Amino acid sequence: MVNDNFFMNLALQEAWKYQGITYPNPAVGAVIVDKNGKILSISAHKKQGTPHAELNATKEAYLALRGDDYLRDLTDPSQIHSYLLQNHNNLFKNCKIYVTLEPCNHFGSTPPCSLLLLTLGFSEVIIGSVEENPKAVGGINRLKQNGMKVRYGVLKEKCDLLLYPFKKWQRDRFVFFKIATNLNGSYDTGTISSQGSREYVHKLRDKIDLLIIGGDTVRKDRPLLDSRLIDGKAPDILIYSKQKIFDKSIALFGIKDRKVFISNSLDITKNYNFIMIEGGDKMLKATKSITNWYLFFIAPTIKKGSFMTTPLSFKPLYRQDIEGDTMIWLDKII
Amino acid sequence: MVNDNFFMNLALQEAWKYQGITYPNPAVGAVIVDKNGKILSISAHKKQGTPHAELNATKEAYLALRGDDYLRDLTDPSQIHSYLLQNHNNLFKNCKIYVTLEPCNHFGSTPPCSLLLLTLGFSEVIIGSVEENPKAVGGINRLKQNGMKVRYGVLKEKCDLLLYPFKKWQRDRFVFFKIATNLNGSYDTGTISSQGSREYVHKLRDKIDLLIIGGDTVRKDRPLLDSRLIDGKAPDILIYSKQKIFDKSIALFGIKDRKVFISNSLDITKNYNFIMIEGGDKMLKATKSITNWYLFFIAPTIKKGSFMTTPLSFKPLYRQDIEGDTMIWLDKII
Repeated sequence: MVNDNFFMNLALQEAWKYQGITYPNPAVGAVIVDKNGKILSISAHKKQGTPHAELNATKEAYLALRGDDYLRDLTDPSQIHSYLLQNHNNLFKNCKIYVTLEPCNHFGSTPPCSLLLLTLGFSEVIIGSVEENPKAVGGINRLKQNGMKVRYGVLKEKCDLLLYPFKKWQRDRFVFFKIATNLNGSYDTGTISSQGSREYVHKLRDKIDLLIIGGDTVRKDRPLLDSRLIDGKAPDILIYSKQKIFDKSIALFGIKDRKVFISNSLDITKNYNFIMIEGGDKMLKATKSITNWYLFFIAPTIKKGSFMTTPLSFKPLYRQDIEGDTMIWLDKII
Repeated sequence: MVNDNFFMNLALQEAWKYQGITYPNPAVGAVIVDKNGKILSISAHKKQGTPHAELNATKEAYLALRGDDYLRDLTDPSQIHSYLLQNHNNLFKNCKIYVTLEPCNHFGSTPPCSLLLLTLGFSEVIIGSVEENPKAVGGINRLKQNGMKVRYGVLKEKCDLLLYPFKKWQRDRFVFFKIATNLNGSYDTGTISSQGSREYVHKLRDKIDLLIIGGDTVRKDRPLLDSRLIDGKAPDILIYSKQKIFDKSIALFGIKDRKVFISNSLDITKNYNFIMIEGGDKMLKATKSITNWYLFFIAPTIKKGSFMTTPLSFKPLYRQDIEGDTMIWLDKII
């Protein structure tokens, strides 16, 4: 059935591709459908400082309707916003827009999306989650006060789950455990993941403010733990270890402007908002109580190795193919 | 980008949901898009004796355009076909249909789909794979000879992969290895899979003509190996075992009209066309050379148990959520 849920699901799937990478912004997806029910665009917010989902979707829909090289090359959100306000020519007059989150109503790095949607004259805005961020709240009210048809709560539960990390890191901190395994579960078999998966992990390392890693891994692998594959930053490190002495020629110690903590306590996590844990079974067990979500990269290979055995139950939230790997975000079931 | 590939992908994803279950027919998906680009239906062939993908998609599109209780309740393919021929009212005059496989051109359990598409006046038929089954071939020619716009080869590689089991069991035999594991790879931990996954396996058992199982599993689990969850049939069994003596009170022996072979040779597989292997690491190794594809059901749980270690590399073909489990079809890379 091609209905509201179908379109909202397309927006959700697109948004999930950038989960974590939008930090400190939320992952948001948007779909634009014209008056005849044709899908014009499926887009998402991809990174802080780049267009919100609504603006990206509007730009893409505009380009689908009119080849416009000038607009195509614009990357600055404010410029795209202005260009669309000036050149929309009522193209969106009877279009609907599906957004996983209530459109923002404040001037941040972009002008408010509520203004964009009003000016372009969308016939209806269909929303998943309602914004709770006091800085961004009010989009629905502004739209309604200006006579726009608004519905919200479509696939609310799924849209709220997509938004969970954002709400969590706004309140205190969002912590996830990342692990790469083979299809049979072995995880200590050298390089496991596809290039695409490793780049995704580096995109995450570029966004997190603390990376937790086990002392054994540091001693054995002597890792750098930066995000060189995407020319990103190197996060602060907590080496979780009872034994406090490490060979300081290990690569990760050589990076400037990075704090490295060595501790067998997780207390330092209280000073951070977006934390990734990388490790195997031992770390899985040690960090169980502070971890919100899990991120698995499962390579399509069977190899001999070590396996996890720490009992845990999950609820899968999203799956994606990355060059043959199965990437899965999972919620923990307590 | 919402283009041909987007619509063909929707058809592909829908068809994969019934992979194996359409035996002896191929898995086929179809999507109908109206003259304005609105998706009217996304459907598939679901089971032998039920409508082909094109007929299902046309029925669903008709119902989306007109609430028609009479048509809704029809299940017989010939009756649906006739009803649509008589009542289409040019509803499909300018619609496009995307089909993963060339429409059939012969009278089988349904009248030819090529006739349906011609009579209803679709403006264009976009096809993935070209039919090689001599009995069904000719759909494209018939459509073209009658002046219909036809394109083929859209996402050809993906459509050919969807079709691979069908081609293989037509030529000689298609063999797949099914295993249920936990997220950490353990597989001998009692009931692992969701109810939905187990029902899917029973739907497959209802279709296969031979089930291969290891002697150890038979002795230990004393299984029935039927398809009771869906009231289906019990396939013939090959117990792969050197030791030929089994307690005949084990459930699987108690089913009438089922052949049970006990052998440490796989030669008997030559007499069958659609074969499922169920087992663990030992069977994985023993059947590697005869297996075409693998089907994993991965439950979102970490549990202690045994693990596979037989080195193998795969190419994932399709992933699906079944009540929290991750179902993955994989091709073997030699």
